[in-house]
Amino acid sequence: MFTDRLFEKTSTIWEKYLEHPFVKEIGKGSLDLDKFQFFMEQDYLYLIDYCKVFALGSAKASRLEVMTIFSDLLHSTLNEEMELHRQYAEKLGMTRTQLENSTPSSTLSAYTSYMLQKSYQGSEADVAASVLACTWSYNFIGLNLAQTEGATEHPFYGDWINMYASDEFSQLASQMKQLMNELAEEKPEREKAELEAIFVHCSKLEYLFWDMAYDKQMWPQEISS
Amino acid sequence: MFTDRLFEKTSTIWEKYLEHPFVKEIGKGSLDLDKFQFFMEQDYLYLIDYCKVFALGSAKASRLEVMTIFSDLLHSTLNEEMELHRQYAEKLGMTRTQLENSTPSSTLSAYTSYMLQKSYQGSEADVAASVLACTWSYNFIGLNLAQTEGATEHPFYGDWINMYASDEFSQLASQMKQLMNELAEEKPEREKAELEAIFVHCSKLEYLFWDMAYDKQMWPQEISS
Amino acid sequence: MFTDRLFEKTSTIWEKYLEHPFVKEIGKGSLDLDKFQFFMEQDYLYLIDYCKVFALGSAKASRLEVMTIFSDLLHSTLNEEMELHRQYAEKLGMTRTQLENSTPSSTLSAYTSYMLQKSYQGSEADVAASVLACTWSYNFIGLNLAQTEGATEHPFYGDWINMYASDEFSQLASQMKQLMNELAEEKPEREKAELEAIFVHCSKLEYLFWDMAYDKQMWPQEISS
Amino acid sequence: MFTDRLFEKTSTIWEKYLEHPFVKEIGKGSLDLDKFQFFMEQDYLYLIDYCKVFALGSAKASRLEVMTIFSDLLHSTLNEEMELHRQYAEKLGMTRTQLENSTPSSTLSAYTSYMLQKSYQGSEADVAASVLACTWSYNFIGLNLAQTEGATEHPFYGDWINMYASDEFSQLASQMKQLMNELAEEKPEREKAELEAIFVHCSKLEYLFWDMAYDKQMWPQEISS
Repeated sequence: MFTDRLFEKTSTIWEKYLEHPFVKEIGKGSLDLDKFQFFMEQDYLYLIDYCKVFALGSAKASRLEVMTIFSDLLHSTLNEEMELHRQYAEKLGMTRTQLENSTPSSTLSAYTSYMLQKSYQGSEADVAASVLACTWSYNFIGLNLAQTEGATEHPFYGDWINMYASDEFSQLASQMKQLMNELAEEKPEREKAELEAIFVHCSKLEYLFWDMAYDKQMWPQEISS
Repeated sequence: MFTDRLFEKTSTIWEKYLEHPFVKEIGKGSLDLDKFQFFMEQDYLYLIDYCKVFALGSAKASRLEVMTIFSDLLHSTLNEEMELHRQYAEKLGMTRTQLENSTPSSTLSAYTSYMLQKSYQGSEADVAASVLACTWSYNFIGLNLAQTEGATEHPFYGDWINMYASDEFSQLASQMKQLMNELAEEKPEREKAELEAIFVHCSKLEYLFWDMAYDKQMWPQEISS
Repeated sequence: MFTDRLFEKTSTIWEKYLEHPFVKEIGKGSLDLDKFQFFMEQDYLYLIDYCKVFALGSAKASRLEVMTIFSDLLHSTLNEEMELHRQYAEKLGMTRTQLENSTPSSTLSAYTSYMLQKSYQGSEADVAASVLACTWSYNFIGLNLAQTEGATEHPFYGDWINMYASDEFSQLASQMKQLMNELAEEKPEREKAELEAIFVHCSKLEYLFWDMAYDKQMWPQEISS
Repeated sequence: MFTDRLFEKTSTIWEKYLEHPFVKEIGKGSLDLDKFQFFMEQDYLYLIDYCKVFALGSAKASRLEVMTIFSDLLHSTLNEEMELHRQYAEKLGMTRTQLENSTPSSTLSAYTSYMLQKSYQGSEADVAASVLACTWSYNFIGLNLAQTEGATEHPFYGDWINMYASDEFSQLASQMKQLMNELAEEKPEREKAELEAIFVHCSKLEYLFWDMAYDKQMWPQEISS
């Protein structure tokens, strides 16, 4: 399976997610609210662009079935995953409009630009490779955190963990992996290597995203204004 | 309103739709089934690409609200308008797979390539201009045919007329017109002229599509094989 | 070689080019000037979009070498092939601006939209498949016409034939074929079939283009205005 | 002029370029060679993608004149600016192939992905906004460094300063500014604000690029492998 190759290639990076203070403190329920709010804001902007990548998947699909998969991902992200963010925003006293008009951080832009560029430039397989690391790794993290004693019942962070550890989300991740495997099949090695490079790059950007959230980084101070 | 300007510019072409034998014979219920079947097949392929144009609208949207409008259009076309085609195909003894694997005609390709190219090349406003003529003119034709005595009760063609004359479909057309007006607002005249050119071009291609269907044209005989 | 497969698949269409009255009358030097002028105008618009397809080839190239090939094609078409058109236009009493502002015919739009759409949607290989039929078939026609007694010395049409039969243009065609072969190599059959479909489609559109020119077709009369 | 607005908006960031140790040490001729080599490698990869952005400008151009400007920029960057890098690489004992196969840093990817994404997504004006900060600011830096006593005669760094301070390069920067002004003209304010946002974002990424070069940053150590 092509996704086994991808997992193997990035396993050391993925292990670092679990050791990252942002992730660990969500699990323990001890994460500072202001760090989480910063994360929520950036992640909401992330999802807006993530939806655009799904839309490009529909536009580039070679079969109606693939077009429908990406269209469903677009629809469910807009209406379900982003709803979780809107609910958290409400708990944190933010309106939907505030959420949508957050200022993008440099790391956020680096990540979503990369996915969008690869998707505009490439094929449906490049789109599938671009979106895979995020969904799969959040499911990986969610399932891992859910094993921590009490984590899923935490009054604030429990919903977040439950979302990404849920059967629905696990199925979403499985579906994306299956799609990746189908689309990579029979590709020449030079194209498989390029799909792998996209997945590795996104896996690294996932790590930078946790760093960004924990440190509430926007841009270096010298050029902030 | 920008769409008033568009309607005015194309009114002589749109009048020709109502006089076209394909359209008139649907209204009278006298259209040959093989012509309709040919149309259904090409129109199904058309809708697959039409959905891709909506997907590009989501990808290019500058606001979440516009992204959601295009995403809803994509979702409803895939699941509702295309369902009508699948039901007709069944009545005509065709499977869903046959429908999806029909051979594209030269006119179909000319039309959908045009919309897709303009949408890849341009902005959300170009996408809105590309999709407008089809939905709006089908609603225009549907509402017109629905006034013909007995047309909506015709055992075979009634469903088709009712679909495009329905309140739901009229709302869809209104929503697209409103979006077009919003996105064209404040554009400099040279950009408005380009949006108008797209709408006029698509309106002409709509006419060629009725011609294609009535004559069951694929390619000129010399190069068919 | 993949291009052998392409040639075989389209040989019956390509033979029709040589029998087409437009092509034959260029060879005999008897073509009506107004038909040629119509052709020149549409072909100039064609080349503008053809250059855009080359530009997309540069944008989608996976290696610097391929980027440079497409960039050179863009540069030479803008500065050499289009210069031939500007010289003919001058002989026919048209300015460069008139040429650039000709009204596109329905067939022209069908052809260039198709190439642009496939190029935006696909990879560098799809770009190569989109541009191949035009250059290769013009060289094929040029070389064929050059064998007609006196054709290359014709005071008006000789330059046209000499351009497309020249060693430079033959090298251009060879280079494009070589690029196509390189980019198609090792692709899975389903992707090769798609590249073939693009080449066949463009070969058919080449035929429609000759038809359009000979009949000076813009749009059906009912919707002209 | 729109570019005056852009300059004003980013002047504090641009001033920081001149104070950056990488830039200052080029001026003094004291920059460590390994830092410069790292920069050269990343900048060469940058220029490959920068050329792709020019190519997209050609593809998206609404007039032949704009298409030609972008095509010329593509051609001259491939053949002139990149030649400077190849010469420096030779002096540093690197082959052309080594240069082309350098490993992209996270900052490089963030920058070129951003330009490419905005260019795929937007219009010719977005392309012009994406490429402007790099050329203009290098000219700004080159002209500034050229005023430092002895800087242009430095045996190693002099060529670099002379390139970016040259009349040819100043003309290139002027041409791009003029193009930006033309394309922004008459745009509604919301679109001008978006063009400004692109320019500001790229100006910030320019600063990050100098940081990356001085510190020879690839990715955070935790996820390097």
